Amino acid sequence: MGNSFGRIFRISTFGESHGKALGVIIDGCPAGLPIEETFIQNELRRRKPGQSKITTQRKEEDEVEILSGVFDGLSTGTPISMLIRNTDQKSKDYSHIAESYRPSHADYTYAQKYGNRDYRGGGRSSARETAARVAAGAIAKLLLLHHNISIQAYVSQAGEVSLSKSYQELDLSLTESNIIRCPDQEVAERMIAHIDQVRKDRDTIGGIVSCVAKGVPAGLGEPVFDRLHAELGKAMLSINAVKGFEYGSGFKGIEMRGSQHNDAFYLEGDKVRTKTNYSGGIQGGISNGEDIYFNVAFKPVATIMQDQESIDESGNPVTVSGKGRHDPCVVPRAVPIVEAMAALVLADYLLLNRSSKL
Amino acid sequence: MGNSFGRIFRISTFGESHGKALGVIIDGCPAGLPIEETFIQNELRRRKPGQSKITTQRKEEDEVEILSGVFDGLSTGTPISMLIRNTDQKSKDYSHIAESYRPSHADYTYAQKYGNRDYRGGGRSSARETAARVAAGAIAKLLLLHHNISIQAYVSQAGEVSLSKSYQELDLSLTESNIIRCPDQEVAERMIAHIDQVRKDRDTIGGIVSCVAKGVPAGLGEPVFDRLHAELGKAMLSINAVKGFEYGSGFKGIEMRGSQHNDAFYLEGDKVRTKTNYSGGIQGGISNGEDIYFNVAFKPVATIMQDQESIDESGNPVTVSGKGRHDPCVVPRAVPIVEAMAALVLADYLLLNRSSKL
Amino acid sequence: MGNSFGRIFRISTFGESHGKALGVIIDGCPAGLPIEETFIQNELRRRKPGQSKITTQRKEEDEVEILSGVFDGLSTGTPISMLIRNTDQKSKDYSHIAESYRPSHADYTYAQKYGNRDYRGGGRSSARETAARVAAGAIAKLLLLHHNISIQAYVSQAGEVSLSKSYQELDLSLTESNIIRCPDQEVAERMIAHIDQVRKDRDTIGGIVSCVAKGVPAGLGEPVFDRLHAELGKAMLSINAVKGFEYGSGFKGIEMRGSQHNDAFYLEGDKVRTKTNYSGGIQGGISNGEDIYFNVAFKPVATIMQDQESIDESGNPVTVSGKGRHDPCVVPRAVPIVEAMAALVLADYLLLNRSSKL
Amino acid sequence: MGNSFGRIFRISTFGESHGKALGVIIDGCPAGLPIEETFIQNELRRRKPGQSKITTQRKEEDEVEILSGVFDGLSTGTPISMLIRNTDQKSKDYSHIAESYRPSHADYTYAQKYGNRDYRGGGRSSARETAARVAAGAIAKLLLLHHNISIQAYVSQAGEVSLSKSYQELDLSLTESNIIRCPDQEVAERMIAHIDQVRKDRDTIGGIVSCVAKGVPAGLGEPVFDRLHAELGKAMLSINAVKGFEYGSGFKGIEMRGSQHNDAFYLEGDKVRTKTNYSGGIQGGISNGEDIYFNVAFKPVATIMQDQESIDESGNPVTVSGKGRHDPCVVPRAVPIVEAMAALVLADYLLLNRSSKL
Repeated sequence: MGNSFGRIFRISTFGESHGKALGVIIDGCPAGLPIEETFIQNELRRRKPGQSKITTQRKEEDEVEILSGVFDGLSTGTPISMLIRNTDQKSKDYSHIAESYRPSHADYTYAQKYGNRDYRGGGRSSARETAARVAAGAIAKLLLLHHNISIQAYVSQAGEVSLSKSYQELDLSLTESNIIRCPDQEVAERMIAHIDQVRKDRDTIGGIVSCVAKGVPAGLGEPVFDRLHAELGKAMLSINAVKGFEYGSGFKGIEMRGSQHNDAFYLEGDKVRTKTNYSGGIQGGISNGEDIYFNVAFKPVATIMQDQESIDESGNPVTVSGKGRHDPCVVPRAVPIVEAMAALVLADYLLLNRSSKL
Repeated sequence: MGNSFGRIFRISTFGESHGKALGVIIDGCPAGLPIEETFIQNELRRRKPGQSKITTQRKEEDEVEILSGVFDGLSTGTPISMLIRNTDQKSKDYSHIAESYRPSHADYTYAQKYGNRDYRGGGRSSARETAARVAAGAIAKLLLLHHNISIQAYVSQAGEVSLSKSYQELDLSLTESNIIRCPDQEVAERMIAHIDQVRKDRDTIGGIVSCVAKGVPAGLGEPVFDRLHAELGKAMLSINAVKGFEYGSGFKGIEMRGSQHNDAFYLEGDKVRTKTNYSGGIQGGISNGEDIYFNVAFKPVATIMQDQESIDESGNPVTVSGKGRHDPCVVPRAVPIVEAMAALVLADYLLLNRSSKL
Repeated sequence: MGNSFGRIFRISTFGESHGKALGVIIDGCPAGLPIEETFIQNELRRRKPGQSKITTQRKEEDEVEILSGVFDGLSTGTPISMLIRNTDQKSKDYSHIAESYRPSHADYTYAQKYGNRDYRGGGRSSARETAARVAAGAIAKLLLLHHNISIQAYVSQAGEVSLSKSYQELDLSLTESNIIRCPDQEVAERMIAHIDQVRKDRDTIGGIVSCVAKGVPAGLGEPVFDRLHAELGKAMLSINAVKGFEYGSGFKGIEMRGSQHNDAFYLEGDKVRTKTNYSGGIQGGISNGEDIYFNVAFKPVATIMQDQESIDESGNPVTVSGKGRHDPCVVPRAVPIVEAMAALVLADYLLLNRSSKL
Repeated sequence: MGNSFGRIFRISTFGESHGKALGVIIDGCPAGLPIEETFIQNELRRRKPGQSKITTQRKEEDEVEILSGVFDGLSTGTPISMLIRNTDQKSKDYSHIAESYRPSHADYTYAQKYGNRDYRGGGRSSARETAARVAAGAIAKLLLLHHNISIQAYVSQAGEVSLSKSYQELDLSLTESNIIRCPDQEVAERMIAHIDQVRKDRDTIGGIVSCVAKGVPAGLGEPVFDRLHAELGKAMLSINAVKGFEYGSGFKGIEMRGSQHNDAFYLEGDKVRTKTNYSGGIQGGISNGEDIYFNVAFKPVATIMQDQESIDESGNPVTVSGKGRHDPCVVPRAVPIVEAMAALVLADYLLLNRSSKL
């Protein structure tokens, strides 16, 4: 269970890292939406391995095939299914862990939960599953763009190197101009150098992906449990390696006083605005029309190119060696994944909101 | 929509702050569980207003009435419904905001989403709704205790005053020994003094509630979207005033190297353990048998005893005055709410896990 | 589990026959709907026991109390909860079956499934639970009426006495003019006499409730599993004592030829119509704008005023005596229940359909 | 929406009649189940077109490819996805109906609901979608067989020719011995002759598929809305061309008296049994351990080899000619579909029931 996400715009993903294919079904995409395959393919290209020197060198073309739900270039309202065949699996790289538990991976927990597991490349627990999310997220983005909603994520921290500017002080259109996807070129270079050093140390680091959604109309969100930020938080925490989520003023807002933190309403033309936006565009779990922004914390990648002590399925001590081709830091490739999940949440809540009023 | 939570152990809450009553239905509680009403009532007592000088002085006895689902002291497997009548509503305190939007409250967003709203005491958006969660959470706790799982939350930060010790260095059984619910008496006193000062300043602050679950067996969690920590995160973010969630190493783990951060497996007797627990008891979205721990960030309370500039429904500038009886800091009363939501998640995943294997 | 129904317009019911109360939460009713309590109360009156000589003489006033979700006479978009206190439980009537299994009741199956059970009056398995459905259905009806959709059910068979006319040949507005709720007065009188005889025989019979929905726009229904008639069928089969469901031509259509059975399209003014309506207003699981009509078969009431052989919980032979106050035939009281369930399905699909197109 | 079925053992299907492929994801199959591909393929062979002279002559090999969720021959607990490529689409056969509405098909309703539609072969509304259900149902059957539950359906009526014997009087193992799938050879021959004549008349007829589930333990079913027979009913009504469902005594039971209809309990060895089984193995919505049996009514196939009057999208009168290759009666091919849907329901409720008790 647990492989579906969303209520109206609902996706279900399938597939293992080294299985035949990954894929996704979207049930609930409204009919009449123009579906551009090149747009989907481009989003996958932003996520795919081997895209730069600071990502894994694994090669996967991640070509998507649309199997259903689109006719004459338009969504038909029936399930849109998409398939991505796996091509570059080197499953032999994993025979050494068939019976061992890699530290801070899901090997042990899957074995406990299910009894058996597809150990090749982490099987279902691999972040390779997120390719299916990105494909589905691309269609969610198309739906949002139709409603003038845009989403942009970027890397705001990589290990010790962090971006001190807020998103308002940055030109987010520069995000794709460097391989780390940080819109501040100077910081980007320091991040890249840092990751490069970590990679040479055969080690890994974590980071933060920040994300901004603009153009979200007031009214999205379903209190009390399905508050907009609660679902965004769940969406982000469901991404591999994520350890934390905060929106608006987040953890830092704790030390503020209410009198500072409250966002005063005013009228700008005929639009209700707030002077500050510590609320992060969401009040009482419902969007208020201001920018929605949040941070997502990723832990250091668990696969390191070093020997580590562990145990095998029988409890015997073993040494797990670092093999395969892995990312020293996931954040550059996580940017499109964060965007995809945000798009999926917003698309779903946009449709849910159609039933709020008579 | 959005007023239900959980899949198998599923709750639905209802009720407004100043309406006739609050309540909850639990559908999916297994039959045969002894239901102790005094236990439920005691949990509500931990949340109720007026419990100390640092909480709101509003008086609500929050007496719970079980209407169904329990027979001869045992759950019957049919829906357990519980009712809490409202008694101390002073709705007149709210007539001044019937047509105005309080800053950083849900007044404006509810008005936008629904067109009309019950403005009295914030209506459905009031944290009073969490009383129903605490009642349901009490029953989830009873189910967990039957399986030797315990949950303990505590205040680890109030405004600028924070607890530097980790949960392992604390005696969590002392949590209820002071009105702020911080297990370190010295820090607790500083927190109380801080809140007292903030209250005198007619202002508010935020804080952090930390939570630990012990005895959780390996195997709970439903990847990929319903990872255990993703659902815990959603549960916490669905609580009023929460702005952030992190588990295990959280945001601080970003700067660690993978070689430091990875939790090495070893065998302790016949039990698989990890030497460190940066994973926070969850790997690949599934519990590994170690303690689960996480932090929840609460913003400063939006209601302050000061005049604030805002606008009314027609867009005219208005001054919103601070009236009513409110908390200067929500964290002491949030402790049982965090526990309740954690209990609801774990109870649900415990039942879901019964279907993992043949 | 299983005590909720619907996706967007979603109800959850609770309560046992002889417990403190029955109730229902509606989550997802759009905001802005005028809620008339007298309308709800009137629907309950049509279902309540003791309404005529051919129903049980049990007296329950079934007074409904709205606890939340309505403000100033309008739905607010938040959960509408309604409570009906039980008043006339004669639980002593049931002590004789505390450990025995009544034939064709749910005593044995509840005992097997849950281990323990509230045996008083059948507990949760009693048709008394349908009072909560009727209350919720009343609100669904108000929503449908706002969209010019009306639902009318009536009794078309009681034991051996059946109505040979189709609904088109009847004046359905006469349904409430007699105590059996059959719009043909002559047949109604024969039905009443038949039931009266059966009652005197201390026995029971079954019957058919037919139902027609008019004004349903084309487009409601969610293929492939949630076809409109599939959900209607489930809704009807979830009512106590129902053994069968058919819509449109139903079981009789089997013997027709496709060339007779197909409903030819034509244009009436600017409205697409069909010349015949064997489809029952639904094609491919989606409404086509014609009248929706269906039949619901109810079995003979299981409680009879005769001694019956059975066994007790230990497997010992026992005689179960007919006690209490029961209906000799459920169909007159089932009419508003069938309508309520139909209204709930249509309200839900009306809202679901808002997301079909861009 | 509406393309998923089940709660724990949950399937989602996709694909159009003349699209690239059909497929299904199963989320929630317990880990450790041996998955035999030949078993799945054999079930598909029972459903596939072109299997005999009384079915459509369309040729589809319906070869299934398992893409995920199975490793080393065992289910892994992760989503099982299966793909069936379309091969014999003759889409040109459908260009004549691109803009016309075939009588009693879903052309008009899909156009109304979605605005655009894939008209080739009926697109998503085609019964071709049921191939995906049969593949998923095969895996559900394997799970049930592991628990000693078996399901057998058969044809009990084809047009005017019906089988008068009850299932207890038949040897159901003979079902596959003839092309109509009727276990009574003499009646089978009459059915076949009847269908053959209808085919020659370029017309179609309906029929009944009956189904029996043996070995179902007591306790399956989730009252009140998700009664076992309600979900079975929905499952059956979701199959193309189904117009009615009845279980146990069904529509015929109406005329019985309660004193005849009630099933008396007795003890057979240490097993609780009922002397008769008018309840159809389900009481109060929960299985009681007796055989579950039900009937499913199918309408005459809408596609006939005759000219029919209709209208086009602009409302102009048109003549729709019968083209393509179609079934004169669907029931022989519907037998495995009915079994598949029954298996999916029972597998789901088997898993749901694991949470009934402490």
